[in-house]
Parts: sequence; C-alpha cells; structure tokens
Amino acid sequence: MPSIGKKTATRMAFSILDYSDDEAQALIDAIADVKKNITGCPVCFGISEGGLCSVCTDDKRDSSVICVVEDYRAVVALERVRDYRGLYHVLHGVLSALEGVGTEKLRIKELTDRVNNSEINENIIATNPDIEGEATADYLFKLLMPMKLRISRLAYGMPVGGNLEYTDEGTLSRAISGRRDMNI
Amino acid sequence: MPSIGKKTATRMAFSILDYSDDEAQALIDAIADVKKNITGCPVCFGISEGGLCSVCTDDKRDSSVICVVEDYRAVVALERVRDYRGLYHVLHGVLSALEGVGTEKLRIKELTDRVNNSEINENIIATNPDIEGEATADYLFKLLMPMKLRISRLAYGMPVGGNLEYTDEGTLSRAISGRRDMNI
Repeated sequence: MPSIGKKTATRMAFSILDYSDDEAQALIDAIADVKKNITGCPVCFGISEGGLCSVCTDDKRDSSVICVVEDYRAVVALERVRDYRGLYHVLHGVLSALEGVGTEKLRIKELTDRVNNSEINENIIATNPDIEGEATADYLFKLLMPMKLRISRLAYGMPVGGNLEYTDEGTLSRAISGRRDMNI
Repeated sequence: MPSIGKKTATRMAFSILDYSDDEAQALIDAIADVKKNITGCPVCFGISEGGLCSVCTDDKRDSSVICVVEDYRAVVALERVRDYRGLYHVLHGVLSALEGVGTEKLRIKELTDRVNNSEINENIIATNPDIEGEATADYLFKLLMPMKLRISRLAYGMPVGGNLEYTDEGTLSRAISGRRDMNI
C-alpha cells in the first residue's frame, strides 16, 4: 500500500491482534464492500457505486464538454475546484514506451466512441504536464482532430502565488510564450 | 543581510579577525566597488555598470517590447530562460497599501514616459502572480490602456512537470479557465 513501509505494516498487523472480533469484522466488511460495490462507471470509467457515476448522472452538468484525465485522482482534484461543470473521461494511465503502456491499454477507443456517438463540442485534454502526459495529449489531439470539435489543453504557466525568482525555466518559458492579452 | 542570523553574523565577524590585512582590504574594496560602480540603468532601472545596462545597449534585442518586472531578480530569472528578446522595465517594488507603497514610489511615471516617447508595440506585465503583483498589473493595465499598444500578462497555469493531484485549487481554476486550443 502506498506510503506504508515495513515498520508501519508491522505495527498495523499487531494492532489488528488487539481488535475485538466486531472491529476486525467491520474492517473485513469495509474492504469487501469496496471491492463489491465500487465499480467503474461504464461511460467515463470514473468511480461509481454500481451503474453510472455521480457526474455522468448529474443532469445539471454540461454533457457537451469532456475533460480527459489520467486517473481518478485527477477527477477528485478538478471536482475540488468546482469551476468545471462538464463530464470526464478517465484514461487509466498514459502512453509510456518505458512501462509498455500502449494505446490498447488505455480507454482511448471508448473516448473516440463517445465523441462519435454523442454531441461533444469540446474535449479538454487534462493529462499531466509532464513528458508522458504531453505525449498522450499529442496522440489524442491527432486522433480527435478529424472529428470536428474544439480540442483544448489546460493552461501552462506560473502557479497562483508564485514568484518569478523561484520558477523553473521551463515554466517561465511557457509563461512567456503563452502570455495573454489583458482585458477590462 | 538576507538569510544571515545572529549566530552566522557572529561567526562571520570573528572570521574577519583572522583575515590578513590584504584579505580584509579586498573585501572592503569589493563592497566599495559595488556601491561605486554598479548603478541603475537610467532607462530600464535594471543593474548596470555605469550608463545604460547590457540589455538596453544590446541592439539585437527587440526594442518594441517591454517586460515590466518588480525587481532585478525577476530580470535575472527571465534572462536565464533566453526566450525573451525584448527590453525590461524594473518597477522596484509593487503597490502595497499595507507597506505604504504608492504609485509615486515605483518607476511608473518613467514607464509611461518610455511608452509615450519611443515605439513600443507590446508591454508584458510580469509582476508576480500574487495579490500585490496582480493589483499592480491591474493598475498598470488601466494606465497604459489608452496608449494604444498590446498589453499582455504572463500565463497562469500548471507548472511544467506538475501533477493535477498536487496542484492548488487557485492554479487549477486558472488552468481550466485559461485553457488553450491545441494546434498542429
């Protein structure tokens, strides 16, 4: 499990010995519950408790915009912001020659099917701004380009509250090249 | 001096006792040299060794673009990137009600004079993306707007190599609202 080392694992194992039977059963049930009831949404491949997820079933959301992300965690991060009101599409990874992840391991065909079969006006590609995320974004752009919809990418630049002095050169370079006209 | 506390200052003071006369004189000369020979550039108010600075005198640079920054350190950061080929204007601070910095304490009149008296096509406002930097950018925008030139601001968004999961909400919000169409 992430961030659990050998020592912590040992402490956790011993603590289970001190549990009452009821407490141990509650933990067992909780784990079984996750495996049984939390499934993937069959449309966006996000997390759901059986059937469509809470985003896909929310009719207040704009179903003409899809934001393509790498994993569940990105959905959680974007939902925290509350600005984004469209739907998601979770790829479950990024293209990576090094780790042998090709297009067939990601939910890419399902994405093109969605774009082909429903009225999508915009596809926001929100893979992470690192090498593999960029390569995946480029691949998706070339794939979706013939489908006549707006394809956009999250903005690169200075983080809010940042300082030029402590900003890395790659980010500064993007902040300069991506500068925007100021408006009233 | 920044990042020098009481203990370090004491150690530095004692180490000067151990200097030879020549070494002490070299340090004295170096400090005097900085004060005597390093002056402000009379045009952009950046650092120069007497007269115009190395950026203002470089005729390979694009004199129709001015990048407005808070301090010398921002100039150094932007020069490291090597993408920017225009000139600078160093404000020497930002507007701050809290610290009693008003427009008259900054090099703002000098900026409008430069814009009025030379052929400037674009003004990139590169104050830091924090509260005071933003307020200063807004002020400058309103001041320069009637002068018929392009006024732009560095891009806000995800830093290069960043990860959605660890990006603060303000930055994510800017990255979504500032998203850009992908091109070939």
